[in-house]
Amino acid sequence: MTTEATSGILSSDRREDREQIIELLTKAYWMEIETVMSYITNSINPDGVRAQEIIESLKADVQEELGHAVAFGNRIKELYGVVPGSLDFAAEQSYLQPPEEQTDIVHVIKGVIAAESGAIEHYNKIIEFTEGRDPVTQDMVIAILRDEEQHRRLFEGFLREYKAEGLA
Amino acid sequence: MTTEATSGILSSDRREDREQIIELLTKAYWMEIETVMSYITNSINPDGVRAQEIIESLKADVQEELGHAVAFGNRIKELYGVVPGSLDFAAEQSYLQPPEEQTDIVHVIKGVIAAESGAIEHYNKIIEFTEGRDPVTQDMVIAILRDEEQHRRLFEGFLREYKAEGLA
Amino acid sequence: MTTEATSGILSSDRREDREQIIELLTKAYWMEIETVMSYITNSINPDGVRAQEIIESLKADVQEELGHAVAFGNRIKELYGVVPGSLDFAAEQSYLQPPEEQTDIVHVIKGVIAAESGAIEHYNKIIEFTEGRDPVTQDMVIAILRDEEQHRRLFEGFLREYKAEGLA
Amino acid sequence: MTTEATSGILSSDRREDREQIIELLTKAYWMEIETVMSYITNSINPDGVRAQEIIESLKADVQEELGHAVAFGNRIKELYGVVPGSLDFAAEQSYLQPPEEQTDIVHVIKGVIAAESGAIEHYNKIIEFTEGRDPVTQDMVIAILRDEEQHRRLFEGFLREYKAEGLA
Amino acid sequence: MTTEATSGILSSDRREDREQIIELLTKAYWMEIETVMSYITNSINPDGVRAQEIIESLKADVQEELGHAVAFGNRIKELYGVVPGSLDFAAEQSYLQPPEEQTDIVHVIKGVIAAESGAIEHYNKIIEFTEGRDPVTQDMVIAILRDEEQHRRLFEGFLREYKAEGLA
Amino acid sequence: MTTEATSGILSSDRREDREQIIELLTKAYWMEIETVMSYITNSINPDGVRAQEIIESLKADVQEELGHAVAFGNRIKELYGVVPGSLDFAAEQSYLQPPEEQTDIVHVIKGVIAAESGAIEHYNKIIEFTEGRDPVTQDMVIAILRDEEQHRRLFEGFLREYKAEGLA
Amino acid sequence: MTTEATSGILSSDRREDREQIIELLTKAYWMEIETVMSYITNSINPDGVRAQEIIESLKADVQEELGHAVAFGNRIKELYGVVPGSLDFAAEQSYLQPPEEQTDIVHVIKGVIAAESGAIEHYNKIIEFTEGRDPVTQDMVIAILRDEEQHRRLFEGFLREYKAEGLA
Amino acid sequence: MTTEATSGILSSDRREDREQIIELLTKAYWMEIETVMSYITNSINPDGVRAQEIIESLKADVQEELGHAVAFGNRIKELYGVVPGSLDFAAEQSYLQPPEEQTDIVHVIKGVIAAESGAIEHYNKIIEFTEGRDPVTQDMVIAILRDEEQHRRLFEGFLREYKAEGLA
Amino acid sequence: MTTEATSGILSSDRREDREQIIELLTKAYWMEIETVMSYITNSINPDGVRAQEIIESLKADVQEELGHAVAFGNRIKELYGVVPGSLDFAAEQSYLQPPEEQTDIVHVIKGVIAAESGAIEHYNKIIEFTEGRDPVTQDMVIAILRDEEQHRRLFEGFLREYKAEGLA
Amino acid sequence: MTTEATSGILSSDRREDREQIIELLTKAYWMEIETVMSYITNSINPDGVRAQEIIESLKADVQEELGHAVAFGNRIKELYGVVPGSLDFAAEQSYLQPPEEQTDIVHVIKGVIAAESGAIEHYNKIIEFTEGRDPVTQDMVIAILRDEEQHRRLFEGFLREYKAEGLA
Amino acid sequence: MTTEATSGILSSDRREDREQIIELLTKAYWMEIETVMSYITNSINPDGVRAQEIIESLKADVQEELGHAVAFGNRIKELYGVVPGSLDFAAEQSYLQPPEEQTDIVHVIKGVIAAESGAIEHYNKIIEFTEGRDPVTQDMVIAILRDEEQHRRLFEGFLREYKAEGLA
Amino acid sequence: MTTEATSGILSSDRREDREQIIELLTKAYWMEIETVMSYITNSINPDGVRAQEIIESLKADVQEELGHAVAFGNRIKELYGVVPGSLDFAAEQSYLQPPEEQTDIVHVIKGVIAAESGAIEHYNKIIEFTEGRDPVTQDMVIAILRDEEQHRRLFEGFLREYKAEGLA
Repeated sequence: MTTEATSGILSSDRREDREQIIELLTKAYWMEIETVMSYITNSINPDGVRAQEIIESLKADVQEELGHAVAFGNRIKELYGVVPGSLDFAAEQSYLQPPEEQTDIVHVIKGVIAAESGAIEHYNKIIEFTEGRDPVTQDMVIAILRDEEQHRRLFEGFLREYKAEGLA
Repeated sequence: MTTEATSGILSSDRREDREQIIELLTKAYWMEIETVMSYITNSINPDGVRAQEIIESLKADVQEELGHAVAFGNRIKELYGVVPGSLDFAAEQSYLQPPEEQTDIVHVIKGVIAAESGAIEHYNKIIEFTEGRDPVTQDMVIAILRDEEQHRRLFEGFLREYKAEGLA
Repeated sequence: MTTEATSGILSSDRREDREQIIELLTKAYWMEIETVMSYITNSINPDGVRAQEIIESLKADVQEELGHAVAFGNRIKELYGVVPGSLDFAAEQSYLQPPEEQTDIVHVIKGVIAAESGAIEHYNKIIEFTEGRDPVTQDMVIAILRDEEQHRRLFEGFLREYKAEGLA
Repeated sequence: MTTEATSGILSSDRREDREQIIELLTKAYWMEIETVMSYITNSINPDGVRAQEIIESLKADVQEELGHAVAFGNRIKELYGVVPGSLDFAAEQSYLQPPEEQTDIVHVIKGVIAAESGAIEHYNKIIEFTEGRDPVTQDMVIAILRDEEQHRRLFEGFLREYKAEGLA
Repeated sequence: MTTEATSGILSSDRREDREQIIELLTKAYWMEIETVMSYITNSINPDGVRAQEIIESLKADVQEELGHAVAFGNRIKELYGVVPGSLDFAAEQSYLQPPEEQTDIVHVIKGVIAAESGAIEHYNKIIEFTEGRDPVTQDMVIAILRDEEQHRRLFEGFLREYKAEGLA
Repeated sequence: MTTEATSGILSSDRREDREQIIELLTKAYWMEIETVMSYITNSINPDGVRAQEIIESLKADVQEELGHAVAFGNRIKELYGVVPGSLDFAAEQSYLQPPEEQTDIVHVIKGVIAAESGAIEHYNKIIEFTEGRDPVTQDMVIAILRDEEQHRRLFEGFLREYKAEGLA
Repeated sequence: MTTEATSGILSSDRREDREQIIELLTKAYWMEIETVMSYITNSINPDGVRAQEIIESLKADVQEELGHAVAFGNRIKELYGVVPGSLDFAAEQSYLQPPEEQTDIVHVIKGVIAAESGAIEHYNKIIEFTEGRDPVTQDMVIAILRDEEQHRRLFEGFLREYKAEGLA
Repeated sequence: MTTEATSGILSSDRREDREQIIELLTKAYWMEIETVMSYITNSINPDGVRAQEIIESLKADVQEELGHAVAFGNRIKELYGVVPGSLDFAAEQSYLQPPEEQTDIVHVIKGVIAAESGAIEHYNKIIEFTEGRDPVTQDMVIAILRDEEQHRRLFEGFLREYKAEGLA
Repeated sequence: MTTEATSGILSSDRREDREQIIELLTKAYWMEIETVMSYITNSINPDGVRAQEIIESLKADVQEELGHAVAFGNRIKELYGVVPGSLDFAAEQSYLQPPEEQTDIVHVIKGVIAAESGAIEHYNKIIEFTEGRDPVTQDMVIAILRDEEQHRRLFEGFLREYKAEGLA
Repeated sequence: MTTEATSGILSSDRREDREQIIELLTKAYWMEIETVMSYITNSINPDGVRAQEIIESLKADVQEELGHAVAFGNRIKELYGVVPGSLDFAAEQSYLQPPEEQTDIVHVIKGVIAAESGAIEHYNKIIEFTEGRDPVTQDMVIAILRDEEQHRRLFEGFLREYKAEGLA
Repeated sequence: MTTEATSGILSSDRREDREQIIELLTKAYWMEIETVMSYITNSINPDGVRAQEIIESLKADVQEELGHAVAFGNRIKELYGVVPGSLDFAAEQSYLQPPEEQTDIVHVIKGVIAAESGAIEHYNKIIEFTEGRDPVTQDMVIAILRDEEQHRRLFEGFLREYKAEGLA
Repeated sequence: MTTEATSGILSSDRREDREQIIELLTKAYWMEIETVMSYITNSINPDGVRAQEIIESLKADVQEELGHAVAFGNRIKELYGVVPGSLDFAAEQSYLQPPEEQTDIVHVIKGVIAAESGAIEHYNKIIEFTEGRDPVTQDMVIAILRDEEQHRRLFEGFLREYKAEGLA
């Protein structure tokens, strides 16, 4: 009775590949966790009628990004890795900190676009690396990539409007 | 604070690829819109007990195909394209016009198979072109392709039955 | 055993009336189908925070207008008519094509009002014609008329706001 | 404190009109009750694959027709009438009795069309009589009329198919 | 390949038993159908606050008794019988006709108890006859018997109250 | 691009008609608002077992009458009118004030009948006036009229019972 | 068998306290009722894209405020008081009447803040008075207070935005 | 790594307070358990139309009181106590035993009021004792107190009606 | 108009049988009520990870056993008996009292098995006695018996595991 | 503390009976498992419009038959038996293998009837054997028997139709 | 009117590829079917508290694996293959037969891991083969692969625990 | 028109109080955010059957704790504070980092207890401070405190079990 897979990414001779993928996924995991934090902050702070649209959008996104984080965490586990603890967290999204003025929506919009751009770039890297190596991870990341692309596209539209009005 | 992705299909140096994909998606968009029209027509006109099975199948499909159209439209938007207006529409599905006799179900069955065959062919082309270029679009089109393959397979079975009975 | 109604719009001596009603309903059917197309287009293309309100409104309306189209189609069938095929479609809503600039929301708003105005006028005509002739069709069209009146009223309010701000 | 309406069909000087409407509604009530019986019978007895479509259609209709009967009964009550008891029932749908052979679907289809034709004729009479007299009853009957028209149209289509195959 | 059961009530040598059971079930079927009629009537006609409790109870029972009728009909079909048509119906529930005065609730309560008593007696007969002969029918009828016993018990309580108040 | 309807009640040359309809609808709006208030009061105050039936009925009605008010308000808006503010409110339902004794249910029942009678009369007036002028408003009011007729009929039955017992 | 509580706010020697609380609750009850009226009015009248946000917010609030009113009413009843009738109503929210111009959203926003401020002040008074006297009322009012604080906070944000744009 | 709370009711130096609270909660627990028993009994036994209102009310209350019992049990556990076993149970609600005559509803109503009065008194004691000592328990008991107050108020209304009719 | 059943367990000459069945059902009723108490206790007290499985199982069972008790009570009522009051309760499940140590799960498991064994034995007795006498009661008890058999089987498995580990 | 039932099928002196029942149930278990397999196969393979009815019917049946298998397995466990492993499986339904031609529906229909006939015969045997021995198993099997009888009756009707058309 | 796809895996010149894929899918189909059987068996047989976690996990998995089997079957059909009948089944999962002792959970855990490992290996083979040949099949198998990887990972964790405790 | 509350915590002369409360709430906010992170980590990493219970518990808790964080954030906003950004985050839960060995459940249990103890202590502090100052905040924190107390009590039970087994 064999209990070891002898082909695919989970076979014992593919350890090195797995470790590289785990490293990439761990970075992705932290990006999503920080995004959760930033989106909570920015879905509570802003003032104003027009801000409501942003607030609703970010609130819904908190659950979505949390789901991404959990997905990354689960995949790390499946690849025999360990999900890191809170002491390993290091904040990077300087562009999503609360602005001086809570009615400065443009600051928030630009911050979201920056966050999504970073994610898109990193996920493209994972897709490239897993090509032919780990189709399950690749498939999962493509689906997440789409969410991020859609989200950025939406906020680019917001920014364009403010630019058209000379406010950004 | 960068707000531009520097890798992947959305990066600025991939504009040409994007344009070709948009053209392919636009054609797909119109195919689905026309299919919506044709399936409404053919889910109302036919008479008879046996026709009910076809009618039910096409009615459910109206929503599915509309969903495909919207998916193509959304992807066009994400790739910085513009979804076309109704003046650009040109009907092509001569084979799905209402038949002389509303009990002529074979006409409808053949028309559906023809429509699905056209879609399958075109979607295979998109899958091929996006390979290694745009995994998100490819993934989306593969999922849609499966729907069309299943639907055609079902109607081929219908046709086979009528043939067996010497009616087609 | 009689299987023919001898009174009401479905009785055999009311054929001419039925044909005129079918013609009116067929025109209504095509108006709704084109509106479906136009609303999909205009619920995907626009950019900006304020556009979200329009987008949401039109998205919800796609299903509503599709429902109207199907209702018209079903009534045509009940009156012994035939729902036309896609080759008969001729686009007319020049005012709902995508604008030059995707942030030009006023263009969309005006287009929607124009579309609804056309529908309202045509449906009033049907209501008038069916008075005392076909209460079932009349009842159905009154209900649809209300939807269109409400929708136009909403967009008139949107337009008034933009006018007040000197943008329309 | 007045507790009497002084205008509309419920005012005391409109008693005669009310009585005629109640008579018409009582007949409609019994038609629906018998249809419930007949549809139960004919949704259980028939044999065969093709019969399933008929059976499903009639099963769903049992609830719909029961709903009509209750609607007629309620309106009788609102107009100060009394819903009759089972001793007043007299069967009339000779055409919907179980056929000799349980695979004789054409018998069932013709019976349903006959029943619906009778209902349509009677309901047109009610609509005519209530015109300008009792808009609430008229509105209710128009809605029920539509259900019956749709149902007959469906079974006419079934019949047409069997005719086309030389079986009816 | 045998397609005949050789034991149990459906085997070919048990025809006589089946016929007797079908006769018993047919009577049960008509009892339930008449009860449906009577309960509709008596759930619309009565006036008064206290009548509401009765009305609610009977309204809910219409669906339950209809379910019983359909269950009897289905079992008749399974035993190779034929569900009868509306011409075979003969009203028997003289005690459930509308009373002189619509506030005469005691009349309704007594009528319901009489109807349930008749059903209970007949169903006990079926249970007895099917013992050891047809466990499936027996099981089904025991379940229905319970519903009727509960319903009668409830109305006996109602009657007792009116008696206590010297009204019955 | 026309954005004006040229036929129907919304066309510019029908202003006077619209104004009269708005006046009628405004009165209806206030009637419903006061009914909401009165029904809240009378669904909390009464004591006793039998009162529960009344309380449940009025509680459910609060939502229904609120819906009517909103419907009237929306139609006022669609006809280019303005829904009035709370300063315009003037109470009229003297007959629905809390009685001396909270167990005096007859007072409540009579009050409800009086309120519904007033509404029925007014709505008949609207139906008459809108005939041939504004089918959408007419259709809406007919549906509301039915609700009020049913409600009054129910409370008339309650009253009759109390009368039969010599309590009213 | 004692049927009287001998401690707590419901005991017979606490009558005076109860009466003062009832007076406070009655005022709160009327405030909520008027707010319901004002929010219906202001959720129908305004025009424009941006107004939709306000409209949605107020529409949802109608149900919430109605719930508050009913809660106040129920508590009055529990404390052996009587909920007042519509003749006792006196409008006070002059600041929430419809503005001259239906696109004047700032008027609505200021009106809502004024209404909420009044409520917050009054509810703080109730919380203070019931401290140590009636924990159940206190708990209920704290929960309602929170709703009003949140609502005012939201509209303050709206106002701040309009101020930032120089429109308020 | 400390795993002990050093402030609040759960800290180790607050043991005595906890024990007194546990004793109070245990008594409350048994009161609710007996009420569950009594309400099951009294929601099955009574006969009559008017009894239905009481039966429905008590049936719904069985679940509510069971929920209270579980809440008390859980809080005992959280305070490091032990929920007692069935041998500790001692019946006290002599006033809620089945009456001689099952139509004697007044007996049931008085019994319920007595049971609720006992509970209200005891819960007021707990609220007083936990003031400033254990806000979590206090908050929980205030919520339960409200349920009991509402329930008693309802049955007081029932009693008043029977008194008004000279039956209690 | 007969209102008495003349056959079956409810007929007047079967009084003695009914009384014996009521006695058996009353004992069953008390067994279930005590089990409800015992399962609440034992679903709150135990500590530990493994205990969670037991706790979940017993929590779900509280509702199930309560349902059994109500079923027994209802059947007592239907057979013209009276459900007893709380003063008649006498605890017997000494084996389900809280153990010395809250981590002593084996004590709980053995207690549950003992309780279920008692129930199974008693219910077999009822099934035997009702055979041929009262099929409705028998049917109901068989269904309940199955629940108890399944539950005991589950806890026997739990016990076996602890035995295997030398802990029981 | 006894933990052993001393009466009923689970008592220790009834071991032999239990073993025979387990043997019968094990055979039933395998019959259902094979039916699951066969129905999956035959709900995917067939082609044609008319086949859809069969396919739908078998698809729904896969879940039902799986439920039966699990029920048999659970009862085996409750009777202290062991559910067998896949190595014990031996296919027997030669008549439900895929036909030569996928449009040969008659082959499928006959196969289903044969499978159901075998099941009906075997289940009658179990019902007979458990009579007076194990009412719980008997009750469960009667319920399952009914499902199989209904299913066979349905397919007999299908076959009759094909015979009537000279196709079977 | 062409009704044949000329590109993609369904085109006529790709027959050989299709046949190889069908063979791979057929093996996968049987693996899943056997797993369904094995998981039913192993979700009923085991005894003990800790076994519940395994049982729950396998029970939920029965539906999941059945879904996989149906997915494989459907794809076989779409590729113009035939789903095999039960006579073709040959058991292979010797490691998932019921163990000697029903508390031997380690046996079950190891069996599940072995089954999942076999599946993972086979599905990797399919993914490899379909690369660039049949993206739809590949996509479907990647999704199923993920399910199996997750399931194996979970049971590896279970095994590790038992090993840590020296039980495996 | 006043738009400022003049009493309660939101009045302008209570600024200092507000600031202290905001500071306390900000600390609470960060505690909950870190707990979210730690619970995600510890609901994915652990291996083993027994760990499943912990994992399920923590998974459910992630949503609960996130809800607490959002509640704290919203209250900060209502008090005119600003929710901090991710750069302000500083990890403190050293005791909830992933252990050396993923089967070391005791490490996780102790970590959870430590985290909850910290929270309980801090929340008691807030409740004390807000007493008489800000009843809304106090009420909210009492509710959250209960959640934490319950959660700690559960994990204390887990720990006790492991201690009893000599594993902690």
